[in-house]
Amino acid sequence: MDKNRLHVCLTPALLPTFKVEEYVVVVIDILRATTSMCVAFGHQVSSIVPVETIEECSQWKAKGYLAAAERNGEMIPGFDFGNSPYSYMRPDIAGRHLAMTTTNGTQALHLAHQLGAPKIVIGAFSNMSVLNQWLLAQNSNVLLLCSGWKNRVNMEDTIFAGAVARLLGHHFDSMDDAAQIARTFFWSANLQKRRFFERSSHYFRLIHLNLQEDVKYCMKKDTHAVLPIYEHGRLLDLLNPRYTQLQKELAAV
Amino acid sequence: MDKNRLHVCLTPALLPTFKVEEYVVVVIDILRATTSMCVAFGHQVSSIVPVETIEECSQWKAKGYLAAAERNGEMIPGFDFGNSPYSYMRPDIAGRHLAMTTTNGTQALHLAHQLGAPKIVIGAFSNMSVLNQWLLAQNSNVLLLCSGWKNRVNMEDTIFAGAVARLLGHHFDSMDDAAQIARTFFWSANLQKRRFFERSSHYFRLIHLNLQEDVKYCMKKDTHAVLPIYEHGRLLDLLNPRYTQLQKELAAV
Repeated sequence: MDKNRLHVCLTPALLPTFKVEEYVVVVIDILRATTSMCVAFGHQVSSIVPVETIEECSQWKAKGYLAAAERNGEMIPGFDFGNSPYSYMRPDIAGRHLAMTTTNGTQALHLAHQLGAPKIVIGAFSNMSVLNQWLLAQNSNVLLLCSGWKNRVNMEDTIFAGAVARLLGHHFDSMDDAAQIARTFFWSANLQKRRFFERSSHYFRLIHLNLQEDVKYCMKKDTHAVLPIYEHGRLLDLLNPRYTQLQKELAAV
Repeated sequence: MDKNRLHVCLTPALLPTFKVEEYVVVVIDILRATTSMCVAFGHQVSSIVPVETIEECSQWKAKGYLAAAERNGEMIPGFDFGNSPYSYMRPDIAGRHLAMTTTNGTQALHLAHQLGAPKIVIGAFSNMSVLNQWLLAQNSNVLLLCSGWKNRVNMEDTIFAGAVARLLGHHFDSMDDAAQIARTFFWSANLQKRRFFERSSHYFRLIHLNLQEDVKYCMKKDTHAVLPIYEHGRLLDLLNPRYTQLQKELAAV
C-alpha cells in the first residue's frame, strides 16, 4: 500500500477542515441511520435515495418509493418507516426503492458529496468486516466521517470509527490525532461497549422512545454482507448480484 | 452544587454548537500557548493581551509592551518571545505587560469572547489543581475549550480536558459525549502520557523545531499557582496579590 492516511472527522461540522476530495469517505451514523441502511440492503432493497428534507422524501413516496423519515429519533407520521433497523426486516421490501431522510446521517452524506468526496460508502457494525476489506482494497486515503448529533461529537460513532482504526490502522502510513483518540476510546470501551453506549446522550433519547432493542441491534457486528455506495444521488449495494444491472436500469431512468 | 454540566468542545470550529453564554469557558492550548501564559504569570507579568494578528502584536510592542508572536510553532522574527515556556523564565519580565499572538490559543480565546462566554480562564497542566479548585467554586456549567490545531482535534488538549473531566466529573450533574470520550482517552493515555504526546501530530511539528524540552515541560503538573482570567481584553492572574490594584490601574488607562 502506498503512503495513505487514515483520518477521522468527529462531526460533519469539521468536514470543511479536510481536503475531502483526497479521501474515500465512510459515513457513520450507528444509532441508527447507517445501521438501518445496511439492514435494508440486507433485505434486498434495490436502492436508497438519501434526501435532506421531509418534503423531498414525500415527493419520492408520491412516485411509488418506500419512504423513511425520522427526526430526533421519531418516525414522521405518514411515512412507511422511521429509523429502526427492525422495521426493515421484511421480505416485501426486496426489489423496492427507498427514499430516506434522518436527523444526522443523510446530511453528513450530502455534505461529503458537496465537498467533493470521490467515493462515499456507508459503515456500521452491521457491515464492518466487509467494509474494512473493501477499504483496504482501495489503496487510498480514508476518512471516517462520524455523523454525530446536530454537529456535536457522539460516542457511538466515535467508537465505531475507533474500531475501524484499530483494525486497519497498521495498514496506513499515518493517522491523525482524532483517529488515535477514537482508536484508544474504542479500545477502552470495547469490553464494555454496551455500558458506554448507555452513557451516550443519544442513548437517553432513544431509551425515552423505548428503543433499547434498536440500540442492542446497532452494536451487532457483521449482520449483513453489504456495501452501500453512493452513486448519482443514490445508494446501491456494491455486493448485490444485481448491482451492475441496477446501475444500468437507473442510468436509463 | 446545582445541576451543572461539564462539557468539552474538541476544537474551536465546534464552539458555535454550544450556547457559550451558559458556561464558564476554559481555554486549553497545552502545546504551548496556555502553558506559556501560566509560566509568564508565574514569573509575575502584570497582564497579557492576547491578540489575533501579528500586526496588532507589533502595535503593542511599539507602545512598550513585551511582545510574543508565534505561527506554526516558530517565533516571528522581530518579537521578544515565541511560544516556548522556557523563554518566560526570566526575572526581568516581572511587572511588565505582554502582548501575545499564537496559531491556535489566542484565536480560541477571542472566539469564546465573541460568542458571549461570561467568564474565560486559561488552563494547562501547569495550573491544573488551582484551576480545578476554582472551577468547582464557580458552581456553574463549565466548557473545556480545546484550541486544537487549525480547527482540527488534537491529542494533547483532549488529554488535558480529559484529565479535568476525570477529576471534576463526579461534581457535575452531566457530561456530554465529548467529555466522556476525553475522560476515557486521558485514562488510557495517563500512564503513558509522553508516549501519547509523541504520537500527536503537533509533537512532530515541534520535534522538527528541536522543541522536545518544551513538550516535556508542558506535561508537568502544577508548576505555577496562577489563574489567568480574561477581563476587558486582557488576561490578569486572579491569584496575583496585586490583582485588584492592577484591575484599577488598567481601568484607568
